[in-house]
Amino acid sequence: MAQKPSIPKGTRDFGPAEMARRNYIFDTIRSVYALYGFRQIETPAMENLSTLMGKYGEEGDKLLFKILNSGDFLRGIDANELSGEGSPKLAAQLCEKGLRYDLTVPFARYVVQHREELTLPFRRFQIQPVWRADRPQKGRYREFYQCDADVVGSDSLLNEVELMQIVDEVFRRFGIRVCIKINNRKILTGIAEIIGQADKIVDITVAIDKLDKIGLDNVNAELAEAGIPADAIEKLQPIIQLSGSNADKLATMRAVLKDSEIGLKGIDEVEFVLNQFAAVTAPSLQGRAGGGSSLEFDLTLARGLNYYTGCIFEVKALDVEIGSITGGGRYDNLTGIFGMPGLSGVGISFGADRIYDVLNQLDLYPKEVSTATQLLFVNFGEAEAAYALPAVAACRQAGIRTEIYPDAAKMKKQMQYANAREIPFVALAGESEMAEGKFTLKNMTTGEQQLISASEIARIIQS
Amino acid sequence: MAQKPSIPKGTRDFGPAEMARRNYIFDTIRSVYALYGFRQIETPAMENLSTLMGKYGEEGDKLLFKILNSGDFLRGIDANELSGEGSPKLAAQLCEKGLRYDLTVPFARYVVQHREELTLPFRRFQIQPVWRADRPQKGRYREFYQCDADVVGSDSLLNEVELMQIVDEVFRRFGIRVCIKINNRKILTGIAEIIGQADKIVDITVAIDKLDKIGLDNVNAELAEAGIPADAIEKLQPIIQLSGSNADKLATMRAVLKDSEIGLKGIDEVEFVLNQFAAVTAPSLQGRAGGGSSLEFDLTLARGLNYYTGCIFEVKALDVEIGSITGGGRYDNLTGIFGMPGLSGVGISFGADRIYDVLNQLDLYPKEVSTATQLLFVNFGEAEAAYALPAVAACRQAGIRTEIYPDAAKMKKQMQYANAREIPFVALAGESEMAEGKFTLKNMTTGEQQLISASEIARIIQS
Repeated sequence: MAQKPSIPKGTRDFGPAEMARRNYIFDTIRSVYALYGFRQIETPAMENLSTLMGKYGEEGDKLLFKILNSGDFLRGIDANELSGEGSPKLAAQLCEKGLRYDLTVPFARYVVQHREELTLPFRRFQIQPVWRADRPQKGRYREFYQCDADVVGSDSLLNEVELMQIVDEVFRRFGIRVCIKINNRKILTGIAEIIGQADKIVDITVAIDKLDKIGLDNVNAELAEAGIPADAIEKLQPIIQLSGSNADKLATMRAVLKDSEIGLKGIDEVEFVLNQFAAVTAPSLQGRAGGGSSLEFDLTLARGLNYYTGCIFEVKALDVEIGSITGGGRYDNLTGIFGMPGLSGVGISFGADRIYDVLNQLDLYPKEVSTATQLLFVNFGEAEAAYALPAVAACRQAGIRTEIYPDAAKMKKQMQYANAREIPFVALAGESEMAEGKFTLKNMTTGEQQLISASEIARIIQS
Repeated sequence: MAQKPSIPKGTRDFGPAEMARRNYIFDTIRSVYALYGFRQIETPAMENLSTLMGKYGEEGDKLLFKILNSGDFLRGIDANELSGEGSPKLAAQLCEKGLRYDLTVPFARYVVQHREELTLPFRRFQIQPVWRADRPQKGRYREFYQCDADVVGSDSLLNEVELMQIVDEVFRRFGIRVCIKINNRKILTGIAEIIGQADKIVDITVAIDKLDKIGLDNVNAELAEAGIPADAIEKLQPIIQLSGSNADKLATMRAVLKDSEIGLKGIDEVEFVLNQFAAVTAPSLQGRAGGGSSLEFDLTLARGLNYYTGCIFEVKALDVEIGSITGGGRYDNLTGIFGMPGLSGVGISFGADRIYDVLNQLDLYPKEVSTATQLLFVNFGEAEAAYALPAVAACRQAGIRTEIYPDAAKMKKQMQYANAREIPFVALAGESEMAEGKFTLKNMTTGEQQLISASEIARIIQS
């Protein structure tokens, strides 16, 4: 036998059991998005490289999967280019197209391209795979799904509130208890402003984040090491030791940032979102199943992407050790890169792969998730199969997922098939059943058997 | 403003209205597949080129989208290769991976790779996009979805019968009247055998297919032109003029093919499928809505793909002029290309793009297909919005797709938004409604307005 075929590293096959679970995740997110008035779009897997290049930094450009031009792909390329290493510049000559790297840039491209057809504010969601030539490792894939929702064309903070409600509702439906962390880029800018260290904001948030682990002295030492002067570190003390309720923290920050207009703006924004979210979720919590999310102001939340300009958020599962399972924020000029400035947007992205892992670890998949076969008719031969086929059709018409074993194989083999497939009911009709116009229905869990007419089968399985 | 961004030729963006319709198509096919015990899998967009190359003929190899290797893609490539035209051989050195071209080869790869985990017979379905570097033209795209179902590991013709039932059920649900054409490769082989012209079978079926248009004499002239000797053409006469019911045609063919063992086997197979399908669909047709498909033995059906070995089928819409909207057949050795011989399979593939066109032309989409917003709350300002938010949440909890306009924009602008989005209900609460603890609910279709409490809104919209 030849060598077993395989798939590219970092990619995955999804078998039937995994697919049922993944569909449950996507369907849940999709229906909540729709409930909030978001509408689905899809964009092509391939975008022009000119759309993608330069949007994810130099490193991102390297991680784009590029598609070799069809036909004579060497035409018009200078021979000198073809020596030495395969450079990014040469790649861009050999390839006009690339696979999408995320859903945000294609969405920005979509908005600009279709702007005449769109009614603003435009609320869209999109659930599609993306591809990145990252080094594959545990939990990091070269093909994975993103589940994004964005509103563009509205500055209102109500959008932020609604996105938090969506997060709350989705994880409530999953039964996953989460904490939503919220911060605001304007607050971070304000901090940098008051200590006069605009370029050190990442060092600062990273150091503050370590407070619990390494203690105050070590945090201050790290800040000094990062080149932050002593007087600035002094000013940072109330920020580093920020604690208490959301209201406490906001009050402290308001005092610290009193001289920074943009910083105070950030405080106002976070306060609005926290208050509105509390007002809206409090009554609806009554009498509802599931977790209920807490929303927490977290100054150490920075998020890597440079395009965020306002509120930013991230979601952590409370009962599983895993990174952020959802994130997002406001950006003020995403479509500017395609020549359409001044369009503000805010969005979130659910991390389907990590949510899959959390649901698995907590064993939270509902039983009904499976779309597997419910009933198998055993096949004893041509005459018996012909006798069974109308009953098979009737069961399907009643909505029961039904199979008839296609071959008249040995009984043992057919029962093994039912067991391996975890089919809960098996129907049999041999000579004696046929003589009576009936079927033997076997419950594979209890072993119980009963002799019944075809019309009773569906009713029994459904009950 | 910069030049509008665009997408690669032959690819498409799908907006919200198209997505709702496409999801309706995919969901319908998916639920019928599941009803018949087929289970969903997904495979990666990228396969190793070694998996794809040589499976679709020389032309197919050229139509594969190939992905440039990451990093130094020129490493190890002989400089001499880099002059002249970009050859397929060089492409295979620059690229290890390609985008899948169909779902059949990845499925065969999946079966071989996962054979230890699979219980045979394995019934899988798969709904994913495929990519082909074809010249784009009307109705032909470089990215399009396929919706395949296959059974592997069973020789039984019951599988063919069930696939015909699936076709019947899917188009019944769509409300599209169709004719399913069936033929068998063994019959075509038998015909070639009895006239001693094994290599002329395509010319023969093409010529026969023109009978209605050009008449018998011209068909015979074409056959002679194709190099078929007079005595063979003589033997073909009953085949060319084949007519009558399925039973008539089978009887004629049985006589013609009496000396061809394989030909008679093909007749038997078609007869079995026709009879069983008639037996199974006849009773279930009673009292059911929708079209009801006819199954017709059509000797001119050949289908291009070389891997078919038994029954082949194609579906035509009766009320729209369009090519085949579904097709499939039996293949006996698909996994042999990956070193796993002897596994027979049979499958079908629904053409989602053409079905989309047919449903559009016949205006057959059900009203409920839309997942658009049902209710918009107008936003008069911060206090009014805060008053509305609990009602918004309650409506969503009742399952109504609800939005609140995020900005306190002019009333006119908000109503224009509701109109453009075709939102059927708008709720308003200004000073007077708030004083009474109520909302004005406006039916955008009738113009009717009523003053009601928040708890009544959901009930009225749902009724």
